[in-house]
Amino acid sequence: MSGKAATERLKLLIAYDGRPYRGWQSQTAKNGVQDFIEGAFARIVGERVVVHGSGRTDTGVHALGQVAHADVPLGKLTLTAWGTALNANLPPEIRILRIRKAPAGFHARFDACGKIYTYRVYHGPMLHPLEVGRAWHLHSELDLELLRDCAAKLLGEHDFAGFAASRGRAEDTVRTLRRIDVKRRGSIVTLTFEGSGFLYRMVRLLTGTLMRCAQHRAPAAWIDELLAGKGRIKTSFAAPADGLYLTRVLY
Amino acid sequence: MSGKAATERLKLLIAYDGRPYRGWQSQTAKNGVQDFIEGAFARIVGERVVVHGSGRTDTGVHALGQVAHADVPLGKLTLTAWGTALNANLPPEIRILRIRKAPAGFHARFDACGKIYTYRVYHGPMLHPLEVGRAWHLHSELDLELLRDCAAKLLGEHDFAGFAASRGRAEDTVRTLRRIDVKRRGSIVTLTFEGSGFLYRMVRLLTGTLMRCAQHRAPAAWIDELLAGKGRIKTSFAAPADGLYLTRVLY
Repeated sequence: MSGKAATERLKLLIAYDGRPYRGWQSQTAKNGVQDFIEGAFARIVGERVVVHGSGRTDTGVHALGQVAHADVPLGKLTLTAWGTALNANLPPEIRILRIRKAPAGFHARFDACGKIYTYRVYHGPMLHPLEVGRAWHLHSELDLELLRDCAAKLLGEHDFAGFAASRGRAEDTVRTLRRIDVKRRGSIVTLTFEGSGFLYRMVRLLTGTLMRCAQHRAPAAWIDELLAGKGRIKTSFAAPADGLYLTRVLY
Repeated sequence: MSGKAATERLKLLIAYDGRPYRGWQSQTAKNGVQDFIEGAFARIVGERVVVHGSGRTDTGVHALGQVAHADVPLGKLTLTAWGTALNANLPPEIRILRIRKAPAGFHARFDACGKIYTYRVYHGPMLHPLEVGRAWHLHSELDLELLRDCAAKLLGEHDFAGFAASRGRAEDTVRTLRRIDVKRRGSIVTLTFEGSGFLYRMVRLLTGTLMRCAQHRAPAAWIDELLAGKGRIKTSFAAPADGLYLTRVLY
């Protein structure tokens, strides 16, 4: 006997180019990706709809498979019509790739059991103009074998506090890294990280630190020290946002 | 015994993202790609250097291999230093990929004996956000066999006036199309055009018209009529600038 109208929960699969926006999260200036999607819902529904993402992405970080949920008036539109209506109200750099009805109680953030991030490095004397904002440009020597050896040290369950930017609040900093793949194709070196979850800036700090080692500008043992230090020592070598892509959220 | 200082001619290989600029050619508002390169030369040399491109590209058209020449004071910089200095004075979306000394009398436009353009079509229900400005989005059915058959009609020497936007001046409209390759890789359909030269808007008009046929929205015989018409009938189906790339200039 609630006074509130009945709703249904939608699960959205979202891709975006990170460059035009101030990250995922809602901003005062209303230029977060979340703001645009909430704005699209509001225009369709006529009232505020809160969109809950699986987690934040920083300014300039791209998404190939961000996931979010939102509650909408029951039976207002079909799933196909929701997709069409939302995309019609979004800039072309943000697309709702897929919409499903979410299971009861589904939560995009709390139900996630893992994430996959991809980091693109452009390795060559000069960044190609069509890669601006889409890859990190490195030109000095890169030892991919060493990179893979260093990456292997990070696999498994560790306290990753040494690879996290502080957000000024106490949190559990233990995470499990299940996979780090390193691939080269022409000038593009791609790192794929799959883990149970990632701390704030963790993928960028992992990538930046791995690259320091792979360029022989830091010893591989530094990775061991950062893991053993559990946050008493921290790396500050964060790779830029440009090369980072949230590829998939696992449930 | 000229009063002018001795110069040497440089041949530049240039790539750019077409989106931020008003095409190749110098503009009153100084936002053509040519303006930026001339500005970079002027800052290095201290006086105006005219940059002659192989031809124009429209607003939004990309270049992977535009060629230009320019005369600079003899012995002022090494070729490597020219490249570094120019790129340091250019936005990251414009890069000088390579610099050579040009043979005496070399002219980027008049000496070109052909060009290769690539056109990218994104064929799928929804344009991926990272393809915005970089491909033409088509979602209805696309018959690639028919597309190849229609493309084959265009090969060889023809009067392509039916596939040209008028620039209001009489010109020879006979050109030779040596090759049109059609390839699909996932959602991306790529058309590669190699020809002796291309009229104004010709690649976009060829692509737009071919796609109308490949979507069964125009009969294949229309291509024959446009060729036979020699400009008495004209196509107006121009593919957007977003998908067009000047890939190579042949000398």
